[in-house]
Amino acid sequence: MLFLDLIAKKRDGGRHTREELAFVARGAATGLVPDYQLAAWLMAVVCRGMDEAETVELTRAMARSGDCLGLGDVGRPKVDKHSTGGVGDGVSLALAPLAAACGLAVPMMSGRGLGHTGGTLDKLESIQGFKVRLGLPAIRRIVRRLGTCMFGQTGALAPADRTLYALRDATATVQSRPLIVGSILSKKVAEELDALVLDVKVGSGAIFRDAAGARELARALVKTSKGLGTATVAVLTAMEQPLGRYVGNALEVRQAVEILRGDETSSDYLECLLTLGGWMLKLSGLAKTAEQGSSLMHARIKDGSGLRIFTEMVKAQGGTTAVIDDLSLLPKAKRSRKILSTQNGYVARLDARKIGHAAVLLGAGRAYKEQKLDYGAGLELVKKVGDRVMKGDVLSLIHAADDMKLSLGEKEYRSALIIGPKPPPRRAVILEVLK
Amino acid sequence: MLFLDLIAKKRDGGRHTREELAFVARGAATGLVPDYQLAAWLMAVVCRGMDEAETVELTRAMARSGDCLGLGDVGRPKVDKHSTGGVGDGVSLALAPLAAACGLAVPMMSGRGLGHTGGTLDKLESIQGFKVRLGLPAIRRIVRRLGTCMFGQTGALAPADRTLYALRDATATVQSRPLIVGSILSKKVAEELDALVLDVKVGSGAIFRDAAGARELARALVKTSKGLGTATVAVLTAMEQPLGRYVGNALEVRQAVEILRGDETSSDYLECLLTLGGWMLKLSGLAKTAEQGSSLMHARIKDGSGLRIFTEMVKAQGGTTAVIDDLSLLPKAKRSRKILSTQNGYVARLDARKIGHAAVLLGAGRAYKEQKLDYGAGLELVKKVGDRVMKGDVLSLIHAADDMKLSLGEKEYRSALIIGPKPPPRRAVILEVLK
Repeated sequence: MLFLDLIAKKRDGGRHTREELAFVARGAATGLVPDYQLAAWLMAVVCRGMDEAETVELTRAMARSGDCLGLGDVGRPKVDKHSTGGVGDGVSLALAPLAAACGLAVPMMSGRGLGHTGGTLDKLESIQGFKVRLGLPAIRRIVRRLGTCMFGQTGALAPADRTLYALRDATATVQSRPLIVGSILSKKVAEELDALVLDVKVGSGAIFRDAAGARELARALVKTSKGLGTATVAVLTAMEQPLGRYVGNALEVRQAVEILRGDETSSDYLECLLTLGGWMLKLSGLAKTAEQGSSLMHARIKDGSGLRIFTEMVKAQGGTTAVIDDLSLLPKAKRSRKILSTQNGYVARLDARKIGHAAVLLGAGRAYKEQKLDYGAGLELVKKVGDRVMKGDVLSLIHAADDMKLSLGEKEYRSALIIGPKPPPRRAVILEVLK
Repeated sequence: MLFLDLIAKKRDGGRHTREELAFVARGAATGLVPDYQLAAWLMAVVCRGMDEAETVELTRAMARSGDCLGLGDVGRPKVDKHSTGGVGDGVSLALAPLAAACGLAVPMMSGRGLGHTGGTLDKLESIQGFKVRLGLPAIRRIVRRLGTCMFGQTGALAPADRTLYALRDATATVQSRPLIVGSILSKKVAEELDALVLDVKVGSGAIFRDAAGARELARALVKTSKGLGTATVAVLTAMEQPLGRYVGNALEVRQAVEILRGDETSSDYLECLLTLGGWMLKLSGLAKTAEQGSSLMHARIKDGSGLRIFTEMVKAQGGTTAVIDDLSLLPKAKRSRKILSTQNGYVARLDARKIGHAAVLLGAGRAYKEQKLDYGAGLELVKKVGDRVMKGDVLSLIHAADDMKLSLGEKEYRSALIIGPKPPPRRAVILEVLK
């Protein structure tokens, strides 16, 4: 088989066979196919597309391009959650330990952030000493003992994805449904999951600003994942305003700990968390319905077992657990500023994309790949959409390394905010569940 | 300007501006844009196309990516001929000196052969000592003195094309009209020609087997070339059977010398040569009509001035001129074989593609890029389409390094040949002229 022939076939709109896609994945994983040939093939895929069967085979081939996680003997249902990414979406941090406390095995491979969304790995690294680069044996050991482990993509799992992902980023071939599906699911398939819950975000702070695009991706993800033998649902959730009260790295660790401590009794964050967790338990057979699953999850907040597992996990991965008992020990930015309301009314809009951009300006997110993060930087959103505000009220607290950054962040924050005279219509967080 | 944005624009079917295409050409010429980004862009061009204005600007940008030939002071009209390639098409070898003898300046940049067609450079190198790798000063000096010089693509002229051409070959992005046009014409534009004659071959031994595809390419070439200020015509010529009596490297040098000596008074080769030459003289203003131009060309055969200039050129480029006076001194293959007819009748078909393949099997062409050529190998086509043959007549003479190659070549030659009971209908060599 010649890679050149595969490029020509896809260029001419042909359908790839299982063997051909295995050849592509192996070529990407081993480096035997040069980047420029992979790049031409990727663009041909973007232009000509792939059908459902090809998408399944591409995903399978990418998943098989390296090792499998190998947790067959863990004795628990293996379940994971994947979010397409949104501002303030640190849900994984609380969800993984809670799911483990409910009896699931949750091997959670996460990424870093670029642009307006933060990455789970960056948030975890704001805990001093926390190691996210683990080898497969360490990951297996921690999952067996605690039920969960949160780690970065290793070269061992789905290495084809690492090559293709980096290349897509550099060749304007990111926007392609089969390639997105293959990238997301190949890593999950390599984890050999029993069930998978996908959180597909919709709104200004998400990849998809409208439900139609998100729904199409969600459908393709569910169909492909099921086609590979994994029980799967996709939950479409709102990302018009940031999720939760905090946007930043240490700040989102704080959010997770507050949730696990039971400090919050109702919020969009909690609702999102319990819905996704409920489906994880339902799909794995540990709950009869998603609602019952949510109740089981909630019980693990109340009895403190979720927080206990989170603490154990931080310890097992080398992080300092003192910050969990005393959140004030988490990294702090050098400067802070209160943003006050200049009028009376109701928060009508708090644009997630702009808040994400404000977080980047404050130092909490990356504008480019190599950028160092200020773990303490970010925003505390005191008022969210629907909240009543009076002139002089604190709308938010922002944190950064210097006054210049604070001013840039404040300006961007204010441009994200609309205060209206009447309460805006209530908008749901959970938009739709696709099975 | 970010190259990534240009890829995305073309991926989404956008039209490139002059500045953007200059950026592409500069990036390719300097190596500042990595191969994988160029490859993705090339595939996007293949899939989404380019309109006429973009094709003109791409060609201009590629032409300007390096030096110009700089023959502004040569005091003659600068004219070139380009053929899309065919089996036995060594016309350039005789045409360039004849055109020079008529008063034109013909800086002829040529290529090497791959697959079933041979390259002009390979043919010239079958003359011992002949140097085709010349720098711009040497090329200028020889053209000023003799009116012509035949040389290989230098890194100095249209370097963007060198990068893109190699990359297209390796990424299945060869088949794209704007890219083909840009590649062919950028080198001609860098030669700063006054006029250009394109020989677009049609038939089994050509890129285009049917006239429709050839005509489309010819139209695009003429339109683009004129758009860049060069007087241009394209002549569609037949490539169903090989052109002339010889297929091979030294054999085609022999063909050219025999033509220049006036040994042939009528043949498809001569007709093709005189038609193309006639248009070169017409476009450059040295003849009133193409027919008059052809007569002027023919006169330069009769008075021997074409042969004289060819000899001078061989000398100027380091080649031995003894072979011109005594053709038996040209490289010879170790073994030869006569192919005899097994029946009576008329040659009805002599498939050019298969004859080209036979030449490769005999050692005269390349199956892969690095292959060494046997300069003496090839075929002498004693009988061509329409000729009467009797059982036992010599159909052809084939030449190769050993009997194994001769047998492979004979088999392929015989598969190219059809002998019928009646004379086939006469088919024209010159099919159409597009202005």
